[in-house]
Amino acid sequence: MQFPEVVVLRIGHRPERDQRVTTHVGLAARAFGARGMLLAAKDAGVVKTLRDVVERWGGDFTVRDGVTWRQCIRDWKENGGTVVHLTMYGLRLSDAVEELRGRDRILLVAGAEKVPGEVYGLADYNISVSTQPHSEVSGVAVFLDRLFLGETMDREYPGAPMRIDPCGFGKRTEP
Amino acid sequence: MQFPEVVVLRIGHRPERDQRVTTHVGLAARAFGARGMLLAAKDAGVVKTLRDVVERWGGDFTVRDGVTWRQCIRDWKENGGTVVHLTMYGLRLSDAVEELRGRDRILLVAGAEKVPGEVYGLADYNISVSTQPHSEVSGVAVFLDRLFLGETMDREYPGAPMRIDPCGFGKRTEP
Repeated sequence: MQFPEVVVLRIGHRPERDQRVTTHVGLAARAFGARGMLLAAKDAGVVKTLRDVVERWGGDFTVRDGVTWRQCIRDWKENGGTVVHLTMYGLRLSDAVEELRGRDRILLVAGAEKVPGEVYGLADYNISVSTQPHSEVSGVAVFLDRLFLGETMDREYPGAPMRIDPCGFGKRTEP
Repeated sequence: MQFPEVVVLRIGHRPERDQRVTTHVGLAARAFGARGMLLAAKDAGVVKTLRDVVERWGGDFTVRDGVTWRQCIRDWKENGGTVVHLTMYGLRLSDAVEELRGRDRILLVAGAEKVPGEVYGLADYNISVSTQPHSEVSGVAVFLDRLFLGETMDREYPGAPMRIDPCGFGKRTEP
């Protein structure tokens, strides 16, 4: 099955306060199969951490900071892509996921606490992962795990400098 | 189907640094069907935030801080419960989830960056959600979503003061 290509757009990031959560959003995006993350703020620390992980653990996940979110969303739509905004107030993921799986390219917008009202109108879909408050990190991860039917979770990155050899006790890495 | 009862044990929490991530772990635990969170540190701020969410959004998720993790794990095992430690180095969740679904009670240990080596030995299972680095928040959420076959995600809390009426545009809450 051909799955959509997903890129995460992180908005509302405040460098002093959100560095760890945004880094976790990026790591979850990579681990569950997104192609990259665009960060609508300048934050060299987040970019470095994520690029270091890609270098050591493999894959071609990309990260870019300093983008303008309005422009990003506009460009994405002009190029025929679909914009999905994660919000606890949106439609249930379980009701929309099949339809979304049929799209070619998804820009997945993950906001911090305050999201400008405009985003709700610009998005093609406002989607809720559980209709309960939780976290952008779990929102992105569960969205991708469901969208990709669980197929990306156990993906391997042959040739990566660091690889885990799953085991029941202790830590084993390869090579 | 009778699912196991899951309680999250959060270890390695440093009050100055981990407040937001631990709060997100607790929110994800609640949203995806855990019964409660035990926090192996004193942090009144995290406890208050989580209890406020339960009060407004419903359910009976419990949270307690200041527990001793060794004692917690020991008590859990003495009472016939299963201890599952989330670690990127563990066995793949997809290989173990069916077996875990057959257990009665699971203590799900979610550590911050540094986890004492002893935890690997005390746990009945060391389980990896993806064998890639990401986040305790996404680890707990995806673990629960998979364990509960997606059935807890759309759970409703009748009678809660705040309820979301899922919609494609804007924000609608009930009552």
